[in-house]
Amino acid sequence: MDIATSTPLNTMLGSICIVLVETTHPGNIGAAARALANMGLSDLRLVRPQVFPSPDAEARAASGETLLSAARVFSSLDDAIADCGLIVGSTARARSVSWPVMSPSEMAPVVLDSSRKQRTAILFGRESRGLTNKQLDRCQLFVTAPVDANHASLNLASAVLLLAYELRKSALLRDDSAVSDRPTTGKDLLATSDRVEGFVEHFERVLHAVGFLEQSSDKLFRKIRRIFTRRALEEDDVNILRGVLSAIEKRIDGASNNR
Amino acid sequence: MDIATSTPLNTMLGSICIVLVETTHPGNIGAAARALANMGLSDLRLVRPQVFPSPDAEARAASGETLLSAARVFSSLDDAIADCGLIVGSTARARSVSWPVMSPSEMAPVVLDSSRKQRTAILFGRESRGLTNKQLDRCQLFVTAPVDANHASLNLASAVLLLAYELRKSALLRDDSAVSDRPTTGKDLLATSDRVEGFVEHFERVLHAVGFLEQSSDKLFRKIRRIFTRRALEEDDVNILRGVLSAIEKRIDGASNNR
Repeated sequence: MDIATSTPLNTMLGSICIVLVETTHPGNIGAAARALANMGLSDLRLVRPQVFPSPDAEARAASGETLLSAARVFSSLDDAIADCGLIVGSTARARSVSWPVMSPSEMAPVVLDSSRKQRTAILFGRESRGLTNKQLDRCQLFVTAPVDANHASLNLASAVLLLAYELRKSALLRDDSAVSDRPTTGKDLLATSDRVEGFVEHFERVLHAVGFLEQSSDKLFRKIRRIFTRRALEEDDVNILRGVLSAIEKRIDGASNNR
Repeated sequence: MDIATSTPLNTMLGSICIVLVETTHPGNIGAAARALANMGLSDLRLVRPQVFPSPDAEARAASGETLLSAARVFSSLDDAIADCGLIVGSTARARSVSWPVMSPSEMAPVVLDSSRKQRTAILFGRESRGLTNKQLDRCQLFVTAPVDANHASLNLASAVLLLAYELRKSALLRDDSAVSDRPTTGKDLLATSDRVEGFVEHFERVLHAVGFLEQSSDKLFRKIRRIFTRRALEEDDVNILRGVLSAIEKRIDGASNNR
């Protein structure tokens, strides 16, 4: 039976979603569900899992069975994180990411702060290769567990467990009543992932219009995209920046029409 | 390949032995070996494992294969912990132990202190029932992970992972050389303050040129400035963004000149 008593702790942890991207082994999905249930998280999302549902997943889920059957499957990462503000990428040490990587215990309070206001996502890539560069580009924060350099390959469900454990520890440190009392103000909300994407696409159009981007400059555009996706943008920021883009477009069109 | 580079960290963690007592599922033994290897521990001992060695154990061990094949099997708990000083028992929250139970993070520094002087053991019981009272009687300290009361059943290898992870974190805090063990944070230089200012001024000129900013919109421009100054920009970012601004200016001027 799984009649979860909802506590302030569950509420705090419930707005953090764990996104497993293109997971190869269904057993890992089940083990991740169990780990999340153990730690009081509840929102599991799967992007193009190789095999799901699966008896292997169910066998490993144990008491995370209900959480597993409530997991939502998405056909794209974009869809899976569309309603999320802060996006955190889990990376292996080996992968060189050229910006700061936090430890799980450093990440936890940051994610809890953010998830008080809006849904936060933590992404885990495929077992064999982790998140691709394109997937990492959607993230503002990066986290890696402090593993031994000679045995750095952490099992996917183990990585999920460690992050969920640190989130739970961090949540336990916070005053329960203070959490439930705090009204969520609409101010300073982070732009959700789909809003940021909308801006990035708009920006790309303008860059083409002004002749800054040639068709073949994917690499350059990835750098540009990262300037905006690596750090969390607020709703207000996106509104302002899109206003700027529209003004530029209007000026260019106006100038062209006056020729 | 498994030519472990022995570091002070490995030495510190190497005198802690993990003892799995009467484990039922060989897969859990393999997964525990992998978790220990991930965290830099090396001494795995098995007391009357139900099935061992086993292909299931090997499959789950992954990079912990060497550690797994070095695991020693004992016919009694007494023999397994004969050379150990402090004995720690891992217990599930449900089990009522009539003496204080530590969290993994509280346990870690105590175990490290003790293991500097002599070998320390952490015991894990059978999956279904944990350590028996008789086995618990051999322990001086008890540890349990802070799991959700509604889903308290932590997988055996997961429990091993959490304790090993806390031991590693605690050891990293003590080990001076561990600084080099940390993920390197960014090879890219942050833009200096004057470079960021140069960009912000350039951006302001463009905003005026495209008619987005009126002369009196100081408040709006402060918001825009903050989008870029609130979080560190890298040198590269500033170069790219200034390139974008120049392209916009050129396009506008070009269009105007062609009128």
